[in-house]
Amino acid sequence: MKSFDTIRLDDANSAVVILDQPLLPGTVEYVHLTTIEQMWDAIYKLRVRGAPAIGIAAAMGMYVHMKKVVREVSTHDAFFAAFYNACEYLSGARPTAVNLDWALGKMADALEAVKEKPLPEIIEALRKAAEQIKEEDIRTCRAIGEHGATLLKPGMGILTHCNAGALAASEYGTALAPIYIAREQGINVKVFADETRPVLQGARLTAFELHQAGVDVTLICDNMAAVVMSKGWVDAVFVGCDRVAANGDTANKIGTFSVAVLAKNFGIPFYVCAPFSTIDPTTKTGADIVIEERGGDEITNLWYTRRLAPEGVCTFNPSFDITPAEYISGFVTEKGIISPPF
Amino acid sequence: MKSFDTIRLDDANSAVVILDQPLLPGTVEYVHLTTIEQMWDAIYKLRVRGAPAIGIAAAMGMYVHMKKVVREVSTHDAFFAAFYNACEYLSGARPTAVNLDWALGKMADALEAVKEKPLPEIIEALRKAAEQIKEEDIRTCRAIGEHGATLLKPGMGILTHCNAGALAASEYGTALAPIYIAREQGINVKVFADETRPVLQGARLTAFELHQAGVDVTLICDNMAAVVMSKGWVDAVFVGCDRVAANGDTANKIGTFSVAVLAKNFGIPFYVCAPFSTIDPTTKTGADIVIEERGGDEITNLWYTRRLAPEGVCTFNPSFDITPAEYISGFVTEKGIISPPF
Repeated sequence: MKSFDTIRLDDANSAVVILDQPLLPGTVEYVHLTTIEQMWDAIYKLRVRGAPAIGIAAAMGMYVHMKKVVREVSTHDAFFAAFYNACEYLSGARPTAVNLDWALGKMADALEAVKEKPLPEIIEALRKAAEQIKEEDIRTCRAIGEHGATLLKPGMGILTHCNAGALAASEYGTALAPIYIAREQGINVKVFADETRPVLQGARLTAFELHQAGVDVTLICDNMAAVVMSKGWVDAVFVGCDRVAANGDTANKIGTFSVAVLAKNFGIPFYVCAPFSTIDPTTKTGADIVIEERGGDEITNLWYTRRLAPEGVCTFNPSFDITPAEYISGFVTEKGIISPPF
Repeated sequence: MKSFDTIRLDDANSAVVILDQPLLPGTVEYVHLTTIEQMWDAIYKLRVRGAPAIGIAAAMGMYVHMKKVVREVSTHDAFFAAFYNACEYLSGARPTAVNLDWALGKMADALEAVKEKPLPEIIEALRKAAEQIKEEDIRTCRAIGEHGATLLKPGMGILTHCNAGALAASEYGTALAPIYIAREQGINVKVFADETRPVLQGARLTAFELHQAGVDVTLICDNMAAVVMSKGWVDAVFVGCDRVAANGDTANKIGTFSVAVLAKNFGIPFYVCAPFSTIDPTTKTGADIVIEERGGDEITNLWYTRRLAPEGVCTFNPSFDITPAEYISGFVTEKGIISPPF
């Protein structure tokens, strides 16, 4: 289906190979990460991004790291100390990414389950655990895609925002999974991809992966969505998400809320596609979700040949927004299409 | 009020001096246009832009041109032939800009009114006509500003899209005129400027001129308007326009319709600021307005250090959109704040 591999172990199981995302779409280049420091840096610099992808990369990074550690230690105690030390270090690369800690926790569970075994067996258990996280992600995303694909008919127009595709996960992604699965079933839709300012994940990543997969994709600026919708070209909106509160309020990439308001205005269903685990029962409403604000240089300087806004001008650059539950038609999860209360 | 002069004649009346807009905001540089070919090129390449500004520049360009022609001809016939020849040439620089032909028509009227007089007197009449077009624009924009300022109270938040300010006209602009006039009256507001993809007139021009004028301006990406509105930071939206149909449907820079939908959703009044002459009684509804589509390279390449969308990806790049009349709270004109039917 796709011509790239977002994250994998190399053949010798001695490196995590990731697709270097800041270089996309111009250059498709893989980076071999062999040390824990390289993995930290890759996560921190968004060379691997998207909640599921970060989790997989971190788990594989832990395995590759511990495979080296085992050559340098002789006791279980030293090995375990090194493991938890590396976990804590890697967790700090992006402290807000829930999947990072979740994946490191899975690796720790795998370790503890075989802690009495010889070190080579523990290493093998860690490899299996990392591969399982990737396989589970593929299964979950595939199930999301299968449920979402039931909403699609040939020739429908789908609008998406940001990138919640194969580049944000291991195989199908979340918001794009229904489109990929429908395609496998012979159902082809037309996708409108919002470019997604300021970091342009829609232009750089979504347009890239859909174009590679042969999906009919049209790139638009974020402010063109109303025109495209008013022309009757959009039958549904599919987006991913970073966190869903217990009442259904949803945090996702900045601009998602705008799209939801437009969709409501034009009577177009608006679906959030996400693993069930993204629903956080401990967060009551969207008001409890802290929104990261990033530097204004993302708006004024990033990617540009020169500064395109005056020096000293104020900016407001929230990285995410909260779409209130009442704008959301349904949540497409691996357990089916559901609505709050969960 | 402002530290730049969008268009003027030089002291010797031998050149039209324009602020070179593609260089903004990094470089404030004036270009002296002394030939009709240079003026054509400046209009074509958007070095002077905005409907009112184009009209003024063309009128002044005609005067400067004819002042040279008069030294090379000896008969009225030859002078008149050269005049109409230059009019036709300049009109082709941007055939869709209504104000360009309108201003050239005003210059022809001025010529015909004194056609029996000696050539030096005709030249002087052309100079006066060009200056009058500029003065009339200043008066009209000032009146728009005065009517619009009645809507403003200290501390209000105003969102604007694209650039309909001093850089698009001679002094106050249209959408920004109420903000400038209110400021003269001691009423300061907080402005949110949409960056306005793909050509970034909001970031490059609106943020520049408001910042220069000391107005409190915050630059946002277009997709952040919903968040800013939902927080209660926006009390009214002011935009300019390119053409208003008889029923009130309004053509303006792409993204205006999105803003109007959001404003309606959040119960925020949405005003279109424009000279009364922008209302075109011969255009029945927005459906009769042809929307210019421009090349996709504006989305994928413009301003960028490298191509940020995959080669070969489809784009949709309408340069304008139509906001239906029902989304518009009122039209702020020099004759007052009005609503359709006109």
